[in-house]
Amino acid sequence: MRWIRFTANGKTGYGILDGERITEVTGDPFAGYERTSKTHALNAVKIEVPVIPRTFYCAGLNYTTHIREVAAKRGVEPEIPKQADIGYRANNALVAHGQPVVIPHDATEKVQYEGELVVVIGKQAKHLSEANALSCVLGYTIGNDVSERTWQKSDRTLWRAKNSDTFKPMGPWIETDVNLDAMQTIVRVNGKPSLQFKTNDMLFGIAHFISKMTQYLTLYPGDVVWMGTDGSSPDLKAGDVVDVEITGIGTLTNPFVAEK
Amino acid sequence: MRWIRFTANGKTGYGILDGERITEVTGDPFAGYERTSKTHALNAVKIEVPVIPRTFYCAGLNYTTHIREVAAKRGVEPEIPKQADIGYRANNALVAHGQPVVIPHDATEKVQYEGELVVVIGKQAKHLSEANALSCVLGYTIGNDVSERTWQKSDRTLWRAKNSDTFKPMGPWIETDVNLDAMQTIVRVNGKPSLQFKTNDMLFGIAHFISKMTQYLTLYPGDVVWMGTDGSSPDLKAGDVVDVEITGIGTLTNPFVAEK
Repeated sequence: MRWIRFTANGKTGYGILDGERITEVTGDPFAGYERTSKTHALNAVKIEVPVIPRTFYCAGLNYTTHIREVAAKRGVEPEIPKQADIGYRANNALVAHGQPVVIPHDATEKVQYEGELVVVIGKQAKHLSEANALSCVLGYTIGNDVSERTWQKSDRTLWRAKNSDTFKPMGPWIETDVNLDAMQTIVRVNGKPSLQFKTNDMLFGIAHFISKMTQYLTLYPGDVVWMGTDGSSPDLKAGDVVDVEITGIGTLTNPFVAEK
Repeated sequence: MRWIRFTANGKTGYGILDGERITEVTGDPFAGYERTSKTHALNAVKIEVPVIPRTFYCAGLNYTTHIREVAAKRGVEPEIPKQADIGYRANNALVAHGQPVVIPHDATEKVQYEGELVVVIGKQAKHLSEANALSCVLGYTIGNDVSERTWQKSDRTLWRAKNSDTFKPMGPWIETDVNLDAMQTIVRVNGKPSLQFKTNDMLFGIAHFISKMTQYLTLYPGDVVWMGTDGSSPDLKAGDVVDVEITGIGTLTNPFVAEK
Protein backbone atom coordinates (compact mmCIF):
# COMPACT_ATOMS: atom_id res chain seq x y z
CA MET A 1 0.00 0.00 0.00
CA ARG A 2 1.18 3.52 -0.81
CA TRP A 3 0.37 6.36 1.62
CA ILE A 4 0.56 9.83 0.16
CA ARG A 5 0.17 13.17 1.96
CA PHE A 6 -1.14 15.82 -0.36
CA THR A 7 -2.96 19.13 -0.73
CA ALA A 8 -6.02 19.51 -2.97
CA ASN A 9 -8.62 22.29 -2.89
CA GLY A 10 -6.68 23.98 -0.08
CA LYS A 11 -6.88 20.96 2.23
CA THR A 12 -3.91 18.81 3.32
CA GLY A 13 -4.41 15.19 4.32
CA TYR A 14 -3.61 11.56 3.59
CA GLY A 15 -4.67 9.31 0.78
CA ILE A 16 -3.98 5.86 -0.59
CA LEU A 17 -2.24 5.87 -3.96
CA ASP A 18 -3.15 3.18 -6.47
CA GLY A 19 -1.37 3.69 -9.79
CA GLU A 20 -2.00 7.34 -10.65
CA ARG A 21 -5.17 7.66 -8.53
CA ILE A 22 -5.45 8.82 -4.90
CA THR A 23 -8.32 7.75 -2.64
CA GLU A 24 -8.73 10.35 0.08
CA VAL A 25 -9.04 9.09 3.67
CA THR A 26 -10.20 10.64 6.91
CA GLY A 27 -7.63 10.37 9.71
CA ASP A 28 -4.11 9.17 8.96
CA PRO A 29 -2.06 5.97 8.74
CA PHE A 30 -0.78 6.40 12.31
CA ALA A 31 -3.88 7.01 14.45
CA GLY A 32 -6.36 5.25 12.14
CA TYR A 33 -8.26 6.08 8.96
CA GLU A 34 -11.32 5.44 6.84
CA ARG A 35 -11.47 5.53 3.06
CA THR A 36 -13.77 8.16 1.59
CA SER A 37 -15.45 8.14 -1.80
CA LYS A 38 -13.31 11.10 -2.99
CA THR A 39 -10.51 10.44 -5.43
CA HIS A 40 -7.90 12.65 -7.11
CA ALA A 41 -5.54 12.27 -10.04
CA LEU A 42 -1.95 12.15 -8.76
CA ASN A 43 -0.92 14.87 -11.23
CA ALA A 44 -3.69 17.20 -10.00
CA VAL A 45 -2.55 17.45 -6.36
CA LYS A 46 0.41 19.03 -4.55
CA ILE A 47 2.51 16.28 -2.97
CA GLU A 48 3.52 17.10 0.64
CA VAL A 49 6.27 15.72 2.90
CA PRO A 50 4.84 12.29 3.92
CA VAL A 51 5.07 13.11 7.64
CA ILE A 52 6.55 15.78 9.93
CA PRO A 53 8.31 13.56 12.46
CA ARG A 54 8.25 14.09 16.21
CA THR A 55 11.95 13.13 16.15
CA PHE A 56 14.02 13.01 12.93
CA TYR A 57 16.65 10.26 13.21
CA CYS A 58 19.50 9.65 10.78
CA ALA A 59 22.04 6.82 10.80
CA GLY A 60 24.91 8.77 9.22
CA LEU A 61 27.92 6.63 8.27
CA ASN A 62 26.26 3.31 7.45
CA TYR A 63 27.75 2.01 4.16
CA THR A 64 31.42 1.10 3.95
CA THR A 65 32.05 2.33 0.38
CA HIS A 66 30.68 5.77 1.33
CA ILE A 67 32.90 5.96 4.41
CA ARG A 68 36.01 4.92 2.39
CA GLU A 69 35.31 7.29 -0.54
CA VAL A 70 34.60 10.29 1.70
CA ALA A 71 37.75 9.61 3.77
CA ALA A 72 39.86 9.28 0.59
CA LYS A 73 38.55 12.62 -0.70
CA ARG A 74 39.51 14.24 2.60
CA GLY A 75 42.91 12.48 2.65
CA VAL A 76 42.27 10.77 5.99
CA GLU A 77 41.99 7.15 7.13
CA PRO A 78 38.42 5.79 6.97
CA GLU A 79 36.85 5.31 10.41
CA ILE A 80 34.26 2.54 10.32
CA PRO A 81 31.76 2.96 13.20
CA LYS A 82 31.98 0.13 15.74
CA GLN A 83 28.41 0.46 17.00
CA ALA A 84 25.02 1.69 15.78
CA ASP A 85 24.93 5.26 17.22
CA ILE A 86 21.91 7.03 15.76
CA GLY A 87 22.10 10.75 14.91
CA TYR A 88 19.61 13.50 14.08
CA ARG A 89 18.46 15.87 11.37
CA ALA A 90 16.11 18.88 11.72
CA ASN A 91 12.48 19.38 10.65
CA ASN A 92 13.05 22.93 9.36
CA ALA A 93 14.98 21.44 6.43
CA LEU A 94 12.23 19.10 5.14
CA VAL A 95 10.77 19.71 1.67
CA ALA A 96 8.51 17.57 -0.49
CA HIS A 97 9.05 15.81 -3.80
CA GLY A 98 9.23 18.41 -6.57
CA GLN A 99 10.13 21.32 -4.28
CA PRO A 100 13.41 23.19 -4.86
CA VAL A 101 16.56 22.71 -2.79
CA VAL A 102 17.76 26.28 -2.25
CA ILE A 103 21.57 26.62 -2.18
CA PRO A 104 22.44 29.36 0.36
CA HIS A 105 24.10 32.41 -1.25
CA ASP A 106 27.37 31.84 0.67
CA ALA A 107 27.59 28.07 0.21
CA THR A 108 30.73 26.78 -1.50
CA GLU A 109 30.63 24.62 -4.64
CA LYS A 110 30.69 21.48 -2.43
CA VAL A 111 26.93 20.87 -2.32
CA GLN A 112 26.23 17.16 -2.73
CA TYR A 113 23.39 14.63 -2.62
CA GLU A 114 23.02 11.56 -0.41
CA GLY A 115 20.24 9.18 -1.52
CA GLU A 116 18.79 7.34 1.48
CA LEU A 117 16.16 4.81 2.44
CA VAL A 118 13.84 6.26 5.11
CA VAL A 119 12.06 4.06 7.65
CA VAL A 120 8.70 5.47 8.82
CA ILE A 121 7.65 4.36 12.30
CA GLY A 122 3.98 3.40 12.68
CA LYS A 123 3.65 2.30 16.30
CA GLN A 124 5.03 3.44 19.65
CA ALA A 125 7.88 1.12 20.60
CA LYS A 126 10.41 0.57 23.39
CA HIS A 127 12.76 -2.35 24.20
CA LEU A 128 12.25 -4.21 20.92
CA SER A 129 14.44 -7.22 20.21
CA GLU A 130 16.13 -7.43 16.81
CA ALA A 131 13.73 -10.25 15.88
CA ASN A 132 10.61 -8.10 16.35
CA ALA A 133 12.14 -4.67 15.61
CA LEU A 134 10.36 -4.27 12.28
CA SER A 135 6.96 -4.71 13.97
CA CYS A 136 6.88 -0.93 14.66
CA VAL A 137 7.54 0.04 11.01
CA LEU A 138 4.70 1.44 8.91
CA GLY A 139 6.67 1.62 5.67
CA TYR A 140 9.46 3.22 3.70
CA THR A 141 10.09 6.41 1.80
CA ILE A 142 13.10 8.16 0.23
CA GLY A 143 15.34 10.97 1.50
CA ASN A 144 18.05 13.15 -0.03
CA ASP A 145 20.46 14.15 2.76
CA VAL A 146 21.81 17.23 0.94
CA SER A 147 25.15 18.30 2.41
CA GLU A 148 27.49 21.29 2.13
CA ARG A 149 30.88 19.59 2.64
CA THR A 150 32.90 22.71 3.47
CA TRP A 151 30.60 23.59 6.37
CA GLN A 152 30.56 19.93 7.37
CA LYS A 153 34.31 20.21 7.98
CA SER A 154 34.45 23.71 9.50
CA ASP A 155 31.46 23.72 11.88
CA ARG A 156 31.25 22.05 15.30
CA THR A 157 27.82 20.61 14.47
CA LEU A 158 26.00 19.70 11.23
CA TRP A 159 23.47 22.53 11.57
CA ARG A 160 23.97 24.42 8.30
CA ALA A 161 25.97 21.70 6.48
CA LYS A 162 23.01 19.30 6.70
CA ASN A 163 20.03 21.29 8.01
CA SER A 164 19.85 24.55 6.08
CA ASP A 165 16.24 25.13 4.97
CA THR A 166 15.26 22.78 2.07
CA PHE A 167 18.32 20.48 2.54
CA LYS A 168 16.14 17.47 3.44
CA PRO A 169 13.83 16.44 0.58
CA MET A 170 11.67 13.47 1.65
CA GLY A 171 9.03 11.55 -0.30
CA PRO A 172 7.22 11.16 -2.59
CA TRP A 173 5.12 8.68 -0.53
CA ILE A 174 5.30 5.83 1.99
CA GLU A 175 5.34 2.27 0.59
CA THR A 176 4.29 -0.34 3.13
CA ASP A 177 5.12 -3.48 1.12
CA VAL A 178 8.79 -3.82 0.18
CA ASN A 179 11.41 -6.49 -0.37
CA LEU A 180 14.40 -4.85 1.32
CA ASP A 181 16.96 -7.27 -0.11
CA ALA A 182 15.84 -6.70 -3.70
CA MET A 183 16.03 -2.90 -3.56
CA GLN A 184 18.48 -0.78 -5.54
CA THR A 185 19.11 2.91 -4.84
CA ILE A 186 19.72 4.77 -8.10
CA VAL A 187 20.68 8.46 -8.21
CA ARG A 188 20.47 10.50 -11.42
CA VAL A 189 21.65 14.08 -12.01
CA ASN A 190 19.84 15.82 -14.88
CA GLY A 191 18.55 12.43 -15.98
CA LYS A 192 22.00 10.82 -16.23
CA PRO A 193 22.97 7.88 -13.97
CA SER A 194 25.28 9.09 -11.19
CA LEU A 195 25.29 6.37 -8.52
CA GLN A 196 23.73 2.96 -7.90
CA PHE A 197 23.98 0.69 -4.87
CA LYS A 198 22.20 -2.15 -3.11
CA THR A 199 19.88 -0.36 -0.66
CA ASN A 200 20.05 -2.95 2.09
CA ASP A 201 23.84 -3.40 2.03
CA MET A 202 24.19 -1.48 5.30
CA LEU A 203 26.88 -1.66 7.94
CA PHE A 204 24.15 -1.86 10.63
CA GLY A 205 20.76 -3.00 9.39
CA ILE A 206 17.33 -1.52 10.08
CA ALA A 207 16.32 -4.12 12.68
CA HIS A 208 19.65 -3.74 14.48
CA PHE A 209 19.34 0.05 14.63
CA ILE A 210 15.73 -0.04 15.85
CA SER A 211 16.51 -2.64 18.49
CA LYS A 212 19.53 -0.66 19.80
CA MET A 213 17.68 2.67 19.72
CA THR A 214 14.66 1.36 21.61
CA GLN A 215 16.78 0.12 24.52
CA TYR A 216 17.09 3.81 25.47
CA LEU A 217 14.42 5.75 23.61
CA THR A 218 10.76 5.44 22.70
CA LEU A 219 9.92 5.56 19.01
CA TYR A 220 6.63 7.31 18.24
CA PRO A 221 4.25 7.02 15.26
CA GLY A 222 5.55 9.33 12.54
CA ASP A 223 9.19 9.28 13.62
CA VAL A 224 11.53 8.70 10.69
CA VAL A 225 14.93 7.01 10.54
CA TRP A 226 17.11 7.87 7.54
CA MET A 227 19.44 4.92 6.94
CA GLY A 228 22.52 6.58 5.37
CA THR A 229 23.97 6.42 1.89
CA ASP A 230 26.62 4.59 -0.09
CA GLY A 231 29.16 5.96 -2.57
CA SER A 232 29.78 9.66 -3.09
CA SER A 233 28.31 12.55 -5.06
CA PRO A 234 29.56 15.04 -7.61
CA ASP A 235 29.25 18.74 -6.72
CA LEU A 236 25.82 20.09 -7.61
CA LYS A 237 24.92 23.54 -8.86
CA ALA A 238 21.84 25.67 -9.39
CA GLY A 239 19.89 24.30 -12.35
CA ASP A 240 20.66 20.66 -11.58
CA VAL A 241 17.81 18.21 -10.98
CA VAL A 242 18.44 15.19 -8.73
CA ASP A 243 16.36 11.98 -8.81
CA VAL A 244 16.74 9.48 -6.00
CA GLU A 245 14.99 6.27 -7.06
CA ILE A 246 14.61 3.28 -4.77
CA THR A 247 13.18 0.32 -6.62
CA GLY A 248 9.87 -0.79 -5.12
CA ILE A 249 9.17 2.67 -3.65
CA GLY A 250 9.43 5.30 -6.39
CA THR A 251 11.51 8.37 -7.27
CA LEU A 252 12.15 11.54 -5.24
CA THR A 253 12.94 14.43 -7.60
CA ASN A 254 14.12 17.91 -6.61
CA PRO A 255 15.57 20.80 -8.61
CA PHE A 256 18.46 22.78 -7.12
CA VAL A 257 18.22 26.57 -7.26
CA ALA A 258 20.30 29.49 -5.99
CA GLU A 259 19.15 31.58 -3.02
CA LYS A 260 17.97 35.01 -4.15
CA MET B 1 2.97 36.84 31.74
CA ARG B 2 3.37 33.14 32.58
CA TRP B 3 2.11 30.52 30.11
CA ILE B 4 1.51 27.07 31.54
CA ARG B 5 0.55 23.89 29.70
CA PHE B 6 -1.40 21.57 31.95
CA THR B 7 -3.88 18.71 32.20
CA ALA B 8 -7.06 18.97 34.27
CA ASN B 9 -10.16 16.79 34.03
CA GLY B 10 -8.49 14.70 31.31
CA LYS B 11 -7.93 17.70 29.02
CA THR B 12 -4.53 19.20 28.10
CA GLY B 13 -4.21 22.85 27.09
CA TYR B 14 -2.73 26.22 27.90
CA GLY B 15 -3.47 28.67 30.66
CA ILE B 16 -2.14 31.92 32.09
CA LEU B 17 -0.62 31.55 35.54
CA ASP B 18 -1.10 34.39 38.02
CA GLY B 19 0.38 33.53 41.41
CA GLU B 20 -1.04 30.09 42.21
CA ARG B 21 -4.10 30.43 39.93
CA ILE B 22 -4.41 29.33 36.28
CA THR B 23 -6.87 30.97 33.90
CA GLU B 24 -7.69 28.49 31.14
CA VAL B 25 -7.54 29.77 27.54
CA THR B 26 -8.82 28.47 24.22
CA GLY B 27 -6.10 28.20 21.57
CA ASP B 28 -2.46 28.64 22.52
CA PRO B 29 0.18 31.36 22.87
CA PHE B 30 1.54 30.66 19.35
CA ALA B 31 -1.51 30.68 17.05
CA GLY B 32 -3.68 32.92 19.24
CA TYR B 33 -5.87 32.51 22.30
CA GLU B 34 -8.85 33.78 24.28
CA ARG B 35 -9.21 33.75 28.05
CA THR B 36 -12.09 31.65 29.38
CA SER B 37 -13.92 32.02 32.68
CA LYS B 38 -12.49 28.69 33.95
CA THR B 39 -9.73 28.78 36.55
CA HIS B 40 -7.73 26.09 38.35
CA ALA B 41 -5.49 25.99 41.39
CA LEU B 42 -1.89 25.36 40.30
CA ASN B 43 -1.56 22.52 42.79
CA ALA B 44 -4.69 20.79 41.42
CA VAL B 45 -3.42 20.29 37.83
CA LYS B 46 -0.77 18.13 36.19
CA ILE B 47 1.94 20.39 34.72
CA GLU B 48 2.94 19.36 31.17
CA VAL B 49 6.03 20.12 29.07
CA PRO B 50 5.39 23.78 28.01
CA VAL B 51 5.64 22.92 24.30
CA ILE B 52 6.65 19.97 22.07
CA PRO B 53 8.97 21.77 19.63
CA ARG B 54 9.01 21.26 15.90
CA THR B 55 12.81 21.43 16.16
CA PHE B 56 14.69 21.14 19.47
CA TYR B 57 17.83 23.29 19.34
CA CYS B 58 20.61 23.33 21.93
CA ALA B 59 23.68 25.57 22.07
CA GLY B 60 26.00 23.08 23.79
CA LEU B 61 29.33 24.57 24.89
CA ASN B 62 28.34 28.17 25.65
CA TYR B 63 29.90 29.16 29.02
CA THR B 64 33.68 29.31 29.43
CA THR B 65 33.86 28.00 33.03
CA HIS B 66 31.85 24.91 31.99
CA ILE B 67 34.15 24.26 29.03
CA ARG B 68 37.29 24.65 31.22
CA GLU B 69 35.97 22.49 34.08
CA VAL B 70 34.78 19.69 31.79
CA ALA B 71 38.11 19.70 29.91
CA ALA B 72 40.07 19.62 33.18
CA LYS B 73 38.04 16.61 34.39
CA ARG B 74 38.83 14.82 31.12
CA GLY B 75 42.51 15.85 31.27
CA VAL B 76 42.40 17.62 27.90
CA GLU B 77 42.93 21.22 26.78
CA PRO B 78 39.71 23.28 26.75
CA GLU B 79 38.45 24.05 23.24
CA ILE B 80 36.47 27.28 23.21
CA PRO B 81 34.09 27.35 20.20
CA LYS B 82 35.03 30.06 17.69
CA GLN B 83 31.53 30.46 16.25
CA ALA B 84 27.90 29.95 17.27
CA ASP B 85 27.15 26.48 15.82
CA ILE B 86 23.76 25.37 17.10
CA GLY B 87 23.14 21.70 17.96
CA TYR B 88 20.10 19.52 18.63
CA ARG B 89 18.36 17.46 21.25
CA ALA B 90 15.46 14.99 20.77
CA ASN B 91 11.77 15.24 21.65
CA ASN B 92 11.52 11.66 22.93
CA ALA B 93 13.56 12.74 25.96
CA LEU B 94 11.28 15.59 27.14
CA VAL B 95 9.55 15.31 30.51
CA ALA B 96 7.67 17.89 32.55
CA HIS B 97 8.37 19.51 35.91
CA GLY B 98 7.88 16.94 38.66
CA GLN B 99 8.27 13.90 36.40
CA PRO B 100 11.07 11.41 37.12
CA VAL B 101 14.35 11.20 35.24
CA VAL B 102 14.83 7.46 34.75
CA ILE B 103 18.48 6.36 34.87
CA PRO B 104 18.90 3.47 32.37
CA HIS B 105 19.82 0.17 34.04
CA ASP B 106 23.22 0.05 32.32
CA ALA B 107 24.20 3.70 32.81
CA THR B 108 27.44 4.31 34.70
CA GLU B 109 27.62 6.47 37.84
CA LYS B 110 28.45 9.52 35.64
CA VAL B 111 24.89 10.87 35.35
CA GLN B 112 24.94 14.67 35.73
CA TYR B 113 22.70 17.73 35.50
CA GLU B 114 23.08 20.80 33.29
CA GLY B 115 20.79 23.71 34.25
CA GLU B 116 19.90 25.78 31.19
CA LEU B 117 17.90 28.80 30.11
CA VAL B 118 15.47 27.83 27.32
CA VAL B 119 14.32 30.33 24.69
CA VAL B 120 10.82 29.64 23.34
CA ILE B 121 10.18 30.93 19.82
CA GLY B 122 6.81 32.62 19.26
CA LYS B 123 6.91 33.73 15.63
CA GLN B 124 8.19 32.31 12.34
CA ALA B 125 11.51 34.00 11.55
CA LYS B 126 14.25 34.01 8.90
CA HIS B 127 17.19 36.38 8.25
CA LEU B 128 16.90 38.32 11.50
CA SER B 129 19.63 40.83 12.34
CA GLU B 130 21.12 40.69 15.82
CA ALA B 131 19.31 43.95 16.64
CA ASN B 132 15.85 42.49 16.00
CA ALA B 133 16.60 38.81 16.81
CA LEU B 134 14.61 38.81 20.04
CA SER B 135 11.46 39.91 18.16
CA CYS B 136 10.65 36.23 17.44
CA VAL B 137 10.90 35.17 21.11
CA LEU B 138 7.72 34.38 23.05
CA GLY B 139 9.44 33.84 26.41
CA TYR B 140 11.75 31.71 28.50
CA THR B 141 11.61 28.47 30.44
CA ILE B 142 14.11 26.14 32.14
CA GLY B 143 15.79 22.94 30.97
CA ASN B 144 17.90 20.25 32.62
CA ASP B 145 20.20 18.77 29.96
CA VAL B 146 20.79 15.49 31.83
CA SER B 147 23.93 13.75 30.53
CA GLU B 148 25.59 10.35 30.92
CA ARG B 149 29.26 11.33 30.61
CA THR B 150 30.66 7.85 29.87
CA TRP B 151 28.38 7.43 26.84
CA GLN B 152 29.13 11.04 25.86
CA LYS B 153 32.79 9.99 25.44
CA SER B 154 32.29 6.53 23.93
CA ASP B 155 29.49 7.10 21.40
CA ARG B 156 29.81 8.78 17.99
CA THR B 157 26.70 10.89 18.64
CA LEU B 158 24.95 12.16 21.78
CA TRP B 159 21.93 9.91 21.29
CA ARG B 160 21.83 7.96 24.58
CA ALA B 161 24.23 10.25 26.51
CA LYS B 162 21.86 13.20 26.14
CA ASN B 163 18.61 11.84 24.66
CA SER B 164 17.66 8.70 26.57
CA ASP B 165 13.95 8.87 27.48
CA THR B 166 13.32 11.39 30.34
CA PHE B 167 16.80 13.02 30.04
CA LYS B 168 15.35 16.42 29.04
CA PRO B 169 13.15 17.89 31.78
CA MET B 170 11.70 21.24 30.62
CA GLY B 171 9.41 23.69 32.43
CA PRO B 172 7.60 24.44 34.63
CA TRP B 173 6.16 27.28 32.48
CA ILE B 174 7.05 30.02 29.99
CA GLU B 175 7.75 33.51 31.42
CA THR B 176 7.39 36.26 28.82
CA ASP B 177 8.74 39.17 30.90
CA VAL B 178 12.33 38.77 32.04
CA ASN B 179 15.43 40.82 32.74
CA LEU B 180 18.10 38.61 31.19
CA ASP B 181 21.04 40.46 32.77
CA ALA B 182 19.62 40.16 36.29
CA MET B 183 19.04 36.40 36.13
CA GLN B 184 20.89 33.82 38.22
CA THR B 185 20.80 30.08 37.55
CA ILE B 186 20.84 28.14 40.83
CA VAL B 187 21.00 24.34 40.96
CA ARG B 188 20.22 22.41 44.13
CA VAL B 189 20.61 18.67 44.77
CA ASN B 190 18.34 17.33 47.52
CA GLY B 191 17.69 20.92 48.59
CA LYS B 192 21.39 21.79 49.03
CA PRO B 193 23.06 24.46 46.83
CA SER B 194 25.22 22.78 44.18
CA LEU B 195 25.92 25.45 41.52
CA GLN B 196 25.13 29.11 40.85
CA PHE B 197 26.01 31.26 37.84
CA LYS B 198 24.94 34.40 36.01
CA THR B 199 22.44 33.11 33.43
CA ASN B 200 23.26 35.59 30.70
CA ASP B 201 27.08 35.27 30.99
CA MET B 202 27.18 33.28 27.72
CA LEU B 203 29.98 32.90 25.22
CA PHE B 204 27.51 33.63 22.38
CA GLY B 205 24.34 35.46 23.47
CA ILE B 206 20.74 34.70 22.57
CA ALA B 207 20.43 37.45 19.94
CA HIS B 208 23.70 36.40 18.32
CA PHE B 209 22.62 32.74 18.13
CA ILE B 210 19.17 33.55 16.73
CA SER B 211 20.61 35.92 14.14
CA LYS B 212 23.24 33.37 13.00
CA MET B 213 20.74 30.50 12.95
CA THR B 214 18.16 32.38 10.91
CA GLN B 215 20.63 33.14 8.13
CA TYR B 216 20.23 29.45 7.17
CA LEU B 217 17.12 28.12 8.88
CA THR B 218 13.56 29.18 9.58
CA LEU B 219 12.52 29.26 13.23
CA TYR B 220 8.90 28.22 13.81
CA PRO B 221 6.49 28.98 16.67
CA GLY B 222 7.12 26.48 19.45
CA ASP B 223 10.75 25.79 18.55
CA VAL B 224 13.01 25.88 21.60
CA VAL B 225 16.67 26.84 21.94
CA TRP B 226 18.47 25.56 25.04
CA MET B 227 21.33 27.96 25.77
CA GLY B 228 23.91 25.74 27.50
CA THR B 229 25.19 25.61 31.07
CA ASP B 230 28.05 26.88 33.19
CA GLY B 231 30.13 25.04 35.81
CA SER B 232 29.94 21.28 36.32
CA SER B 233 27.80 18.78 38.19
CA PRO B 234 28.38 16.08 40.79
CA ASP B 235 27.38 12.53 39.87
CA LEU B 236 23.69 11.91 40.55
CA LYS B 237 22.04 8.70 41.74
CA ALA B 238 18.56 7.26 42.09
CA GLY B 239 16.79 9.00 44.96
CA ASP B 240 18.32 12.43 44.26
CA VAL B 241 16.07 15.40 43.52
CA VAL B 242 17.42 18.22 41.33
CA ASP B 243 16.03 21.77 41.32
CA VAL B 244 17.07 24.14 38.54
CA GLU B 245 15.96 27.65 39.53
CA ILE B 246 16.32 30.64 37.24
CA THR B 247 15.42 33.84 39.03
CA GLY B 248 12.52 35.58 37.37
CA ILE B 249 11.19 32.35 35.86
CA GLY B 250 10.77 29.73 38.57
CA THR B 251 12.11 26.30 39.55
CA LEU B 252 12.19 23.07 37.54
CA THR B 253 12.25 20.08 39.92
CA ASN B 254 12.74 16.43 38.97
CA PRO B 255 13.47 13.30 41.02
CA PHE B 256 15.98 10.78 39.66
CA VAL B 257 14.95 7.11 39.77
CA ALA B 258 16.45 3.82 38.60
CA GLU B 259 15.07 1.99 35.56
CA LYS B 260 13.14 -1.10 36.60
